[in-house]
Amino acid sequence: MRIPLDRESPVPLYTQIEQHLRDKILSGALPVGTKLPSSRQLATSLGVNRITVTNAYAEIEAEGLIYTRLGSGTFVAESTGMQRFQKQQIDLMQAPPPWQQAILRRFQVPSQERLERLAASASPPSDLINFAEGHGPEELFPAADIAKALFTVLRRDGNQIGGYGDYAGYRPLRATIVHILASQGIPADPDEILITSGAQQALALVASLLIRAGDAVLVENPTYSTAIDLFTTLGAHLVGVPVDEQGMQVEQVEELLRTVHPSLIYTIPTFQNPSGTCLSGTRRRLLVHLAARYNVPILEDEFVGDLRYEGHAQPALKALDPGGQIIYLGTFSKVLMPGLRLGYLVASGPIYDRLLQWKRINDLACSNLIQRALEAYITVGKYEAHLHRACRVYRPRRDAMLSALKRYLPAGTRWYTPQGGLFIWLHLPPGTTVEMLYPLAMRAGVEFMPGSLCYTNKNNDAHARLTFAMHPPDRIEEGIQRLGQAMTRCLTLQESIQPAVISDESVDC
Amino acid sequence: MRIPLDRESPVPLYTQIEQHLRDKILSGALPVGTKLPSSRQLATSLGVNRITVTNAYAEIEAEGLIYTRLGSGTFVAESTGMQRFQKQQIDLMQAPPPWQQAILRRFQVPSQERLERLAASASPPSDLINFAEGHGPEELFPAADIAKALFTVLRRDGNQIGGYGDYAGYRPLRATIVHILASQGIPADPDEILITSGAQQALALVASLLIRAGDAVLVENPTYSTAIDLFTTLGAHLVGVPVDEQGMQVEQVEELLRTVHPSLIYTIPTFQNPSGTCLSGTRRRLLVHLAARYNVPILEDEFVGDLRYEGHAQPALKALDPGGQIIYLGTFSKVLMPGLRLGYLVASGPIYDRLLQWKRINDLACSNLIQRALEAYITVGKYEAHLHRACRVYRPRRDAMLSALKRYLPAGTRWYTPQGGLFIWLHLPPGTTVEMLYPLAMRAGVEFMPGSLCYTNKNNDAHARLTFAMHPPDRIEEGIQRLGQAMTRCLTLQESIQPAVISDESVDC
Repeated sequence: MRIPLDRESPVPLYTQIEQHLRDKILSGALPVGTKLPSSRQLATSLGVNRITVTNAYAEIEAEGLIYTRLGSGTFVAESTGMQRFQKQQIDLMQAPPPWQQAILRRFQVPSQERLERLAASASPPSDLINFAEGHGPEELFPAADIAKALFTVLRRDGNQIGGYGDYAGYRPLRATIVHILASQGIPADPDEILITSGAQQALALVASLLIRAGDAVLVENPTYSTAIDLFTTLGAHLVGVPVDEQGMQVEQVEELLRTVHPSLIYTIPTFQNPSGTCLSGTRRRLLVHLAARYNVPILEDEFVGDLRYEGHAQPALKALDPGGQIIYLGTFSKVLMPGLRLGYLVASGPIYDRLLQWKRINDLACSNLIQRALEAYITVGKYEAHLHRACRVYRPRRDAMLSALKRYLPAGTRWYTPQGGLFIWLHLPPGTTVEMLYPLAMRAGVEFMPGSLCYTNKNNDAHARLTFAMHPPDRIEEGIQRLGQAMTRCLTLQESIQPAVISDESVDC
Repeated sequence: MRIPLDRESPVPLYTQIEQHLRDKILSGALPVGTKLPSSRQLATSLGVNRITVTNAYAEIEAEGLIYTRLGSGTFVAESTGMQRFQKQQIDLMQAPPPWQQAILRRFQVPSQERLERLAASASPPSDLINFAEGHGPEELFPAADIAKALFTVLRRDGNQIGGYGDYAGYRPLRATIVHILASQGIPADPDEILITSGAQQALALVASLLIRAGDAVLVENPTYSTAIDLFTTLGAHLVGVPVDEQGMQVEQVEELLRTVHPSLIYTIPTFQNPSGTCLSGTRRRLLVHLAARYNVPILEDEFVGDLRYEGHAQPALKALDPGGQIIYLGTFSKVLMPGLRLGYLVASGPIYDRLLQWKRINDLACSNLIQRALEAYITVGKYEAHLHRACRVYRPRRDAMLSALKRYLPAGTRWYTPQGGLFIWLHLPPGTTVEMLYPLAMRAGVEFMPGSLCYTNKNNDAHARLTFAMHPPDRIEEGIQRLGQAMTRCLTLQESIQPAVISDESVDC
């Protein structure tokens, strides 16, 4: 077989071979049943490495254009295998095996259903301004420095960096985390730190170890939507505690502890997701006291840590722990970058060992490479320098969003001024729902996170979460202007179809 | 305060400051209550960056030697906080909160108990030869190439590599995996691939989605010990199918499907862990047929894939899938390196979407950095080249171990010759138990994996798993010689304390 190859071309040789064969088969020049030369023969005749031919053959075999019969050779396929395969896939989606159907009924994710319904109603333009995602902007990611640190540790540790490493996490990284925690007033020991695949894995490990189907779990209402998904799919019964400007209304917690006997209190005390509120010092002390008194563990999710723009720092609940009562979660996703997938938990007492075993059973360990690179890169000082840099960038973005909200949003819209973190939580004007607003906003070119995802019940539909950290001030202004137009449109539509209804939901938060 | 700093020293300045302060405090030169200069003052007087001083202070504050009172300054601590903290930790281990005690009782990991008991009996010398670990040698890890690939993608994609990325996994990597699978005869689509944190996470995601407490699960007996831990902690009732030289005795499966109605069949058909056996083609077809007929999903764990030294390749069960019946697990841990923590599952039909959601709930996504680096590095050809290289290195190691076994082990010891993979599975001579042999072997300087960890019941204690891939032939010979001595010692001891008993267990495998 003669295949014209262009050795000067940027197109790799195997791609050239593959394209040539594909064209010839699809055009009929190589008819069904034609035997192709062996990869060795073709490689020799073309003067290329045999792997080049193997790659090209593998590619078009994957497409079902050719097939290999062991011991006989490679042939042009009769009807294309890929078409058969795709038909089988379609059939399967329509009529999956009965055991699959049973799992589909059993395992349903609350946020997924709601998001799918909302997404189906939306048609965003190409220059969408995204206020929905929950992290900082790409330009602050220290990716290049992490890559450099990887080379540093490679020179130092050689191929050791590719082994499984310590299941609890690379010990020097755990020691660094102890120092970061100490700088925030939280005493800890490296043997109390477990490195996890982001704070999300820490959350999932703790929840799946502590919660059994039917257990009650106390959460702020609203709370982090993926925590709701997690607890719900574990079969927990979620009991929401309302949030006001000082965070969770801890005054209501004792009554709940007495009546629902939860197996866990999950809280995001600092710059809460989604409300942006910070739990007051008094409430922090009361919550820790109640948890110890009623023998209920607290899972403290400190996902944005010390990202504070004004006001005084509050102690972490873990810093007030009377002993083994509080499991603390931290992460490098928000202060450094999400793609590291590195977070950690801090647990005191024998529960730590069970969490370590549970981590091992779930995925053995976190990437040794990335852990060592992060350890080489990060120090207490560097971590704090990052925090300061993030604060310098995010604070004016928060301020830009706050002033745009005042300027562009219709009367009746309310929000808290967050002292830190990433989010502003909007209370929509009476009668407006996310169900109505979301498609209008998307059409206007702005996306927010539907507040209904953050509530333990599906009925609360009068809130939106806006992330201010992701965009520069001018984009923020543009985005809020679009949101204002969509809200005005929503109110007009709503008035035209029915008399205005004052919803109870716009009063709580 | 004057601190002598050596600016030519490789010891960082903050460490020098920290060491100086620690010495002075512990020696009493800086008495309790002494006020230290502010970090700004000290930095100015020493002519260093303020972060340098902050780091040093944070370090000794974490040790409890100094403390900071807000608005007043930093002081030498009265009794060291670290000592108080450590005492609290000890108290907590002795008397944890009641909720911790409940979890300790509820969540017990089979292998951990057995290993702790065995480890307590062992005292290894410093030049231990380790046949216990389940992966290849460090010198074959392509860590430097992965680091280079990271720079390549950084240049190409910029800081995008630090974002969360696609929850299902970086799509071009999923496309590459489709090609690798196609080269092994497994048709798949990128939308059927879910990237996971090693095959272990794929295993845990599938198991925790499909198994409910009380469900029966069919497994090879012996099987992968961490799978036993996983299924057991999920509350499954494990039903073992015996293994012979052709792998799982599938002929026994139909009766079990009829009587115990398992919710899952977990199998490692190729170079099984720990037995090293490869399931015959006939049995593969029968197993797939039975699973479909009795509506039971199969979880196929292809942890070492095509690492074959002789004999014919068998089709993966997934290649025989009649439609949505088989979930397939693969990994880059064994062929490339474990520290990547990248594996994947292949699932067809609507169950895929539930697995994707479950992955998102568990840890959002795998590291975007590492996935992109792997994608830039790996191609079908490179993957196969790696396989060939590993085979070239491992085959003589297997042969060295086989001939050393013949030469040094006492009569009555049996094993199968594995055609691929990493392991040789020893059947100890009648009457010898791992409980007796393990401490003797460790004392002689050789470690193996206790076979009892791999059985669904605790009673089978007559097997040992040896990994031949980790060491060069001369170390293997030395290790097996040591093992032979320990076994002879074990037999002598055993004869001296009781008449030899022919154990039933040495007959099965």
